[in-house]
Amino acid sequence: MKALIVIDVQKGCLKIPRFEIKTKIEKINMLLDTFHEKGLPVFFIQHNGIKENYLLPGTEDFDLEESLHVMETDIRIEKKVNNAFYETTLKELLDSLKINTLYIAGLATEFCVNATVLDALNYDYTVIIAGDGHTTADRELLSAEQIINFYNWLWPNLTPTNGKIEIQNTREIVKSLE
Amino acid sequence: MKALIVIDVQKGCLKIPRFEIKTKIEKINMLLDTFHEKGLPVFFIQHNGIKENYLLPGTEDFDLEESLHVMETDIRIEKKVNNAFYETTLKELLDSLKINTLYIAGLATEFCVNATVLDALNYDYTVIIAGDGHTTADRELLSAEQIINFYNWLWPNLTPTNGKIEIQNTREIVKSLE
Repeated sequence: MKALIVIDVQKGCLKIPRFEIKTKIEKINMLLDTFHEKGLPVFFIQHNGIKENYLLPGTEDFDLEESLHVMETDIRIEKKVNNAFYETTLKELLDSLKINTLYIAGLATEFCVNATVLDALNYDYTVIIAGDGHTTADRELLSAEQIINFYNWLWPNLTPTNGKIEIQNTREIVKSLE
Repeated sequence: MKALIVIDVQKGCLKIPRFEIKTKIEKINMLLDTFHEKGLPVFFIQHNGIKENYLLPGTEDFDLEESLHVMETDIRIEKKVNNAFYETTLKELLDSLKINTLYIAGLATEFCVNATVLDALNYDYTVIIAGDGHTTADRELLSAEQIINFYNWLWPNLTPTNGKIEIQNTREIVKSLE
Protein backbone atom coordinates (compact mmCIF):
# COMPACT_ATOMS: atom_id res chain seq x y z
CA MET A 1 0.00 0.00 0.00
CA LYS A 2 1.14 3.49 -0.91
CA ALA A 3 1.01 6.82 0.90
CA LEU A 4 2.05 10.36 0.04
CA ILE A 5 4.04 12.37 2.59
CA VAL A 6 4.16 16.14 2.00
CA ILE A 7 6.71 17.79 4.26
CA ASP A 8 6.56 21.33 5.71
CA VAL A 9 4.79 23.19 2.89
CA GLN A 10 3.74 25.82 5.43
CA LYS A 11 3.12 29.55 5.05
CA GLY A 12 6.05 30.50 7.31
CA CYS A 13 8.47 28.28 5.38
CA LEU A 14 7.57 30.07 2.16
CA LYS A 15 8.53 33.51 3.52
CA ILE A 16 12.09 32.54 2.62
CA PRO A 17 12.47 32.33 -1.18
CA ARG A 18 12.31 28.66 -2.12
CA PHE A 19 13.65 27.57 -5.50
CA GLU A 20 10.85 27.39 -8.13
CA ILE A 21 8.22 27.20 -5.41
CA LYS A 22 5.24 27.78 -7.73
CA THR A 23 6.22 24.88 -9.97
CA LYS A 24 6.95 22.67 -6.96
CA ILE A 25 3.48 23.37 -5.53
CA GLU A 26 1.92 22.57 -8.92
CA LYS A 27 3.80 19.25 -8.94
CA ILE A 28 2.77 18.48 -5.36
CA ASN A 29 -0.85 19.30 -6.28
CA MET A 30 -0.63 16.83 -9.19
CA LEU A 31 0.46 14.19 -6.68
CA LEU A 32 -2.28 15.20 -4.23
CA ASP A 33 -4.96 15.02 -6.94
CA THR A 34 -3.83 11.54 -7.96
CA PHE A 35 -3.62 10.17 -4.41
CA HIS A 36 -7.05 11.65 -3.63
CA GLU A 37 -8.60 10.21 -6.81
CA LYS A 38 -7.23 6.78 -6.02
CA GLY A 39 -8.33 6.98 -2.38
CA LEU A 40 -4.71 6.57 -1.21
CA PRO A 41 -3.71 8.14 2.11
CA VAL A 42 -2.05 11.56 2.23
CA PHE A 43 -0.01 12.84 5.17
CA PHE A 44 0.85 16.51 5.64
CA ILE A 45 3.81 17.00 7.96
CA GLN A 46 3.86 20.39 9.70
CA HIS A 47 6.91 21.64 11.55
CA ASN A 48 6.29 22.99 15.04
CA GLY A 49 9.34 25.21 15.44
CA ILE A 50 9.12 25.60 19.21
CA LYS A 51 12.85 24.83 19.46
CA GLU A 52 13.67 27.57 16.95
CA ASN A 53 10.86 30.06 17.87
CA TYR A 54 9.56 29.67 14.31
CA LEU A 55 6.40 28.18 12.77
CA LEU A 56 4.52 28.14 16.06
CA PRO A 57 1.16 26.32 16.14
CA GLY A 58 -1.67 28.86 16.41
CA THR A 59 0.16 31.35 14.17
CA GLU A 60 -0.50 31.73 10.44
CA ASP A 61 3.10 30.66 9.73
CA PHE A 62 2.26 27.14 10.94
CA ASP A 63 -0.63 26.75 8.48
CA LEU A 64 -0.34 24.80 5.26
CA GLU A 65 0.19 26.89 2.13
CA GLU A 66 -3.29 27.89 0.88
CA SER A 67 -2.87 26.77 -2.71
CA LEU A 68 -2.24 23.13 -1.70
CA HIS A 69 -5.08 20.77 -2.62
CA VAL A 70 -5.78 19.64 0.93
CA MET A 71 -8.78 17.42 1.70
CA GLU A 72 -10.38 17.11 5.12
CA THR A 73 -9.60 13.42 5.22
CA ASP A 74 -5.84 14.04 4.82
CA ILE A 75 -3.84 13.27 7.94
CA ARG A 76 -1.79 16.00 9.61
CA ILE A 77 1.28 15.23 11.69
CA GLU A 78 3.14 17.79 13.79
CA LYS A 79 6.87 17.32 14.28
CA LYS A 80 9.53 19.24 16.22
CA VAL A 81 12.74 18.08 14.56
CA ASN A 82 13.80 17.39 10.96
CA ASN A 83 12.75 13.74 10.90
CA ALA A 84 8.95 13.36 10.60
CA PHE A 85 9.08 9.97 12.37
CA TYR A 86 10.74 11.29 15.53
CA GLU A 87 8.30 11.34 18.46
CA THR A 88 5.25 11.42 16.17
CA THR A 89 2.47 8.96 15.35
CA LEU A 90 3.54 8.70 11.70
CA LYS A 91 4.95 5.15 11.92
CA GLU A 92 1.97 3.87 13.89
CA LEU A 93 -0.53 5.37 11.42
CA LEU A 94 1.37 4.02 8.41
CA ASP A 95 1.40 0.58 10.05
CA SER A 96 -2.33 0.72 10.76
CA LEU A 97 -2.90 1.46 7.05
CA LYS A 98 -0.47 -1.32 6.01
CA ILE A 99 1.65 1.13 4.00
CA ASN A 100 4.98 -0.14 2.69
CA THR A 101 5.72 2.45 -0.02
CA LEU A 102 6.20 6.13 0.71
CA TYR A 103 6.10 8.88 -1.89
CA ILE A 104 7.88 11.93 -0.48
CA ALA A 105 7.76 15.61 -1.51
CA GLY A 106 8.08 19.01 0.18
CA LEU A 107 10.88 20.95 1.82
CA ALA A 108 13.60 21.59 2.75
CA THR A 109 15.54 19.11 0.64
CA GLU A 110 18.69 18.78 2.79
CA PHE A 111 16.94 19.14 6.16
CA CYS A 112 13.50 17.64 6.76
CA VAL A 113 13.11 15.81 3.45
CA ASN A 114 16.50 14.12 3.77
CA ALA A 115 16.07 13.25 7.47
CA THR A 116 12.65 11.72 6.78
CA VAL A 117 13.90 9.80 3.72
CA LEU A 118 16.77 8.32 5.75
CA ASP A 119 14.56 7.27 8.64
CA ALA A 120 12.05 5.77 6.20
CA LEU A 121 14.93 3.51 5.07
CA ASN A 122 15.58 2.56 8.70
CA TYR A 123 11.97 1.33 8.82
CA ASP A 124 12.40 -0.69 5.58
CA TYR A 125 9.95 1.32 3.49
CA THR A 126 10.27 1.51 -0.25
CA VAL A 127 10.95 5.21 -0.69
CA ILE A 128 10.12 7.12 -3.86
CA ILE A 129 11.07 10.78 -3.80
CA ALA A 130 9.41 13.14 -6.27
CA GLY A 131 12.59 14.50 -7.89
CA ASP A 132 10.77 17.60 -9.12
CA GLY A 133 8.60 17.92 -5.99
CA HIS A 134 11.06 19.03 -3.32
CA THR A 135 12.85 22.33 -2.84
CA THR A 136 15.02 24.43 -0.57
CA ALA A 137 16.60 27.90 -0.32
CA ASP A 138 19.97 29.21 -1.48
CA ARG A 139 22.54 28.58 1.24
CA GLU A 140 25.95 30.05 2.06
CA LEU A 141 27.94 27.45 0.12
CA LEU A 142 25.56 26.07 -2.50
CA SER A 143 22.56 27.36 -4.41
CA ALA A 144 19.15 25.74 -3.90
CA GLU A 145 19.38 24.31 -7.40
CA GLN A 146 22.78 22.72 -6.68
CA ILE A 147 21.43 21.19 -3.48
CA ILE A 148 18.31 19.78 -5.18
CA ASN A 149 20.32 18.27 -8.02
CA PHE A 150 22.88 16.84 -5.59
CA TYR A 151 20.22 15.08 -3.48
CA ASN A 152 18.49 13.76 -6.59
CA TRP A 153 21.85 12.13 -7.38
CA LEU A 154 22.54 11.09 -3.77
CA TRP A 155 19.28 9.39 -2.75
CA PRO A 156 19.17 6.67 -5.42
CA ASN A 157 22.84 5.95 -4.64
CA LEU A 158 22.11 5.15 -0.98
CA THR A 159 22.16 1.47 -0.08
CA PRO A 160 18.51 0.39 0.27
CA THR A 161 17.49 -1.54 3.40
CA ASN A 162 14.71 -4.09 2.78
CA GLY A 163 12.82 -1.91 0.33
CA LYS A 164 14.23 0.27 -2.42
CA ILE A 165 14.91 3.97 -2.91
CA GLU A 166 14.24 5.80 -6.15
CA ILE A 167 13.78 9.23 -7.65
CA GLN A 168 10.80 9.59 -9.98
CA ASN A 169 9.38 12.76 -11.44
CA THR A 170 5.76 13.69 -10.77
CA ARG A 171 4.60 12.67 -14.23
CA GLU A 172 6.11 9.19 -13.80
CA ILE A 173 4.55 8.79 -10.36
CA VAL A 174 1.11 9.86 -11.59
CA LYS A 175 1.38 7.50 -14.57
CA SER A 176 2.47 4.56 -12.40
CA LEU A 177 -0.56 5.03 -10.14
CA GLU A 178 -3.12 5.12 -12.97
CA MET B 1 30.15 8.91 28.74
CA LYS B 2 31.86 9.43 25.41
CA ALA B 3 32.72 7.10 22.55
CA LEU B 4 34.49 7.50 19.22
CA ILE B 5 32.91 6.04 16.08
CA VAL B 6 35.21 5.68 13.06
CA ILE B 7 33.25 4.84 9.93
CA ASP B 8 34.43 2.74 6.95
CA VAL B 9 38.14 3.60 6.89
CA GLN B 10 38.75 0.35 5.01
CA LYS B 11 41.36 -0.56 2.42
CA GLY B 12 38.80 -1.02 -0.35
CA CYS B 13 37.22 2.37 0.32
CA LEU B 14 40.59 4.05 -0.14
CA LYS B 15 41.08 2.65 -3.64
CA ILE B 16 38.88 5.53 -4.79
CA PRO B 17 40.74 8.86 -4.29
CA ARG B 18 39.38 10.42 -1.08
CA PHE B 19 39.92 14.13 -0.48
CA GLU B 20 43.04 14.76 1.66
CA ILE B 21 42.98 11.19 2.92
CA LYS B 22 46.46 11.29 4.51
CA THR B 23 45.58 14.33 6.62
CA LYS B 24 42.19 12.84 7.52
CA ILE B 25 43.88 9.64 8.76
CA GLU B 26 46.35 11.70 10.78
CA LYS B 27 43.42 13.54 12.38
CA ILE B 28 41.56 10.28 13.06
CA ASN B 29 44.75 8.86 14.62
CA MET B 30 44.95 11.91 16.90
CA LEU B 31 41.41 11.12 18.04
CA LEU B 32 42.21 7.43 18.44
CA ASP B 33 45.33 8.20 20.54
CA THR B 34 43.32 10.47 22.84
CA PHE B 35 40.42 8.05 23.27
CA HIS B 36 42.86 5.21 23.96
CA GLU B 37 44.87 7.28 26.48
CA LYS B 38 41.70 8.21 28.35
CA GLY B 39 40.39 4.64 28.28
CA LEU B 40 37.30 5.75 26.33
CA PRO B 41 35.63 3.25 24.00
CA VAL B 42 36.40 3.22 20.28
CA PHE B 43 34.15 1.66 17.64
CA PHE B 44 35.34 0.87 14.13
CA ILE B 45 32.48 0.47 11.70
CA GLN B 46 33.26 -1.71 8.68
CA HIS B 47 31.02 -1.85 5.65
CA ASN B 48 30.11 -5.31 4.41
CA GLY B 49 29.22 -4.51 0.81
CA ILE B 50 27.42 -7.75 0.08
CA LYS B 51 24.57 -5.75 -1.49
CA GLU B 52 27.00 -3.94 -3.80
CA ASN B 53 29.53 -6.80 -4.32
CA TYR B 54 32.16 -4.56 -2.75
CA LEU B 55 34.17 -4.67 0.50
CA LEU B 56 33.42 -8.34 1.13
CA PRO B 57 34.45 -9.79 4.52
CA GLY B 58 37.40 -12.14 4.05
CA THR B 59 38.91 -9.95 1.32
CA GLU B 60 41.68 -7.40 1.96
CA ASP B 61 39.30 -4.61 0.85
CA PHE B 62 37.21 -5.20 3.98
CA ASP B 63 40.18 -4.71 6.32
CA LEU B 64 40.80 -1.47 8.20
CA GLU B 65 43.41 0.83 6.66
CA GLU B 66 46.80 -0.28 8.04
CA SER B 67 47.99 3.12 9.23
CA LEU B 68 45.06 3.50 11.66
CA HIS B 69 46.03 3.29 15.33
CA VAL B 70 43.82 0.31 16.12
CA MET B 71 44.00 -1.41 19.53
CA GLU B 72 42.87 -4.96 20.20
CA THR B 73 40.29 -3.71 22.70
CA ASP B 74 38.57 -1.51 20.10
CA ILE B 75 35.14 -2.75 19.10
CA ARG B 76 34.41 -3.65 15.49
CA ILE B 77 30.92 -3.46 14.02
CA GLU B 78 29.96 -4.76 10.60
CA LYS B 79 27.14 -3.01 8.75
CA LYS B 80 25.45 -3.61 5.39
CA VAL B 81 23.81 -0.23 4.72
CA ASN B 82 24.84 3.39 5.20
CA ASN B 83 23.53 3.75 8.75
CA ALA B 84 25.83 2.01 11.28
CA PHE B 85 22.88 1.47 13.67
CA TYR B 86 20.77 -0.49 11.18
CA GLU B 87 20.61 -4.19 12.13
CA THR B 88 23.85 -4.02 14.14
CA THR B 89 24.69 -4.26 17.86
CA LEU B 90 25.99 -0.68 17.98
CA LYS B 91 23.08 0.77 19.99
CA GLU B 92 23.07 -2.14 22.45
CA LEU B 93 26.84 -1.86 23.04
CA LEU B 94 26.67 1.92 23.47
CA ASP B 95 23.84 1.43 25.98
CA SER B 96 25.78 -1.17 27.92
CA LEU B 97 28.68 1.32 28.21
CA LYS B 98 26.28 4.15 29.19
CA ILE B 99 27.44 6.31 26.28
CA ASN B 100 25.47 9.48 25.58
CA THR B 101 27.98 11.44 23.48
CA LEU B 102 29.27 10.22 20.13
CA TYR B 103 32.33 11.60 18.36
CA ILE B 104 32.08 10.71 14.68
CA ALA B 105 34.73 10.57 11.94
CA GLY B 106 35.42 8.59 8.77
CA LEU B 107 33.81 8.31 5.36
CA ALA B 108 31.95 8.88 3.13
CA THR B 109 30.64 12.24 4.33
CA GLU B 110 27.30 12.29 2.46
CA PHE B 111 26.63 8.55 2.68
CA CYS B 112 27.58 6.55 5.78
CA VAL B 113 28.73 9.44 7.95
CA ASN B 114 25.54 11.44 7.32
CA ALA B 115 23.21 8.43 7.73
CA THR B 116 24.87 7.50 11.04
CA VAL B 117 24.83 11.10 12.31
CA LEU B 118 21.10 11.38 11.55
CA ASP B 119 20.21 8.10 13.24
CA ALA B 120 22.34 9.07 16.26
CA LEU B 121 20.01 12.08 16.58
CA ASN B 122 17.00 9.74 16.44
CA TYR B 123 18.47 7.98 19.50
CA ASP B 124 18.97 11.29 21.34
CA TYR B 125 22.76 11.18 21.44
CA THR B 126 24.82 14.31 21.65
CA VAL B 127 26.67 14.16 18.34
CA ILE B 128 30.04 15.79 17.76
CA ILE B 129 31.41 15.39 14.27
CA ALA B 130 35.13 15.90 13.67
CA GLY B 131 34.84 18.62 11.00
CA ASP B 132 38.36 17.85 9.72
CA GLY B 133 38.06 14.08 10.26
CA HIS B 134 35.62 13.01 7.55
CA THR B 135 36.03 12.80 3.81
CA THR B 136 34.54 11.64 0.53
CA ALA B 137 35.29 11.46 -3.21
CA ASP B 138 34.62 13.91 -6.03
CA ARG B 139 31.13 13.28 -7.40
CA GLU B 140 29.38 14.12 -10.66
CA LEU B 141 27.88 17.38 -9.44
CA LEU B 142 30.08 18.53 -6.57
CA SER B 143 33.72 18.11 -5.60
CA ALA B 144 34.62 16.25 -2.41
CA GLU B 145 35.74 19.54 -0.87
CA GLN B 146 32.38 21.19 -1.65
CA ILE B 147 30.52 18.24 -0.12
CA ILE B 148 32.65 18.26 3.06
CA ASN B 149 32.22 22.00 3.54
CA PHE B 150 28.49 21.78 2.86
CA TYR B 151 27.94 19.06 5.49
CA ASN B 152 30.08 20.94 8.01
CA TRP B 153 27.61 23.80 7.51
CA LEU B 154 24.53 21.53 7.41
CA TRP B 155 25.02 19.34 10.49
CA PRO B 156 25.15 22.08 13.14
CA ASN B 157 22.06 23.61 11.49
CA LEU B 158 19.98 20.47 12.02
CA THR B 159 17.43 20.63 14.82
CA PRO B 160 18.87 18.64 17.73
CA THR B 161 16.64 16.03 19.41
CA ASN B 162 17.32 15.63 23.15
CA GLY B 163 21.07 16.05 22.84
CA LYS B 164 22.97 18.52 20.70
CA ILE B 165 24.83 18.39 17.40
CA GLU B 166 28.11 20.20 16.79
CA ILE B 167 31.11 20.31 14.52
CA GLN B 168 34.49 20.49 16.28
CA ASN B 169 37.91 20.15 14.76
CA THR B 170 40.24 17.41 16.01
CA ARG B 171 42.39 19.82 17.99
CA GLU B 172 39.32 21.14 19.86
CA ILE B 173 38.09 17.60 20.58
CA VAL B 174 41.49 16.47 21.87
CA LYS B 175 41.75 19.59 24.08
CA SER B 176 38.23 19.13 25.46
CA LEU B 177 39.04 15.56 26.51
CA GLU B 178 42.28 16.43 28.32
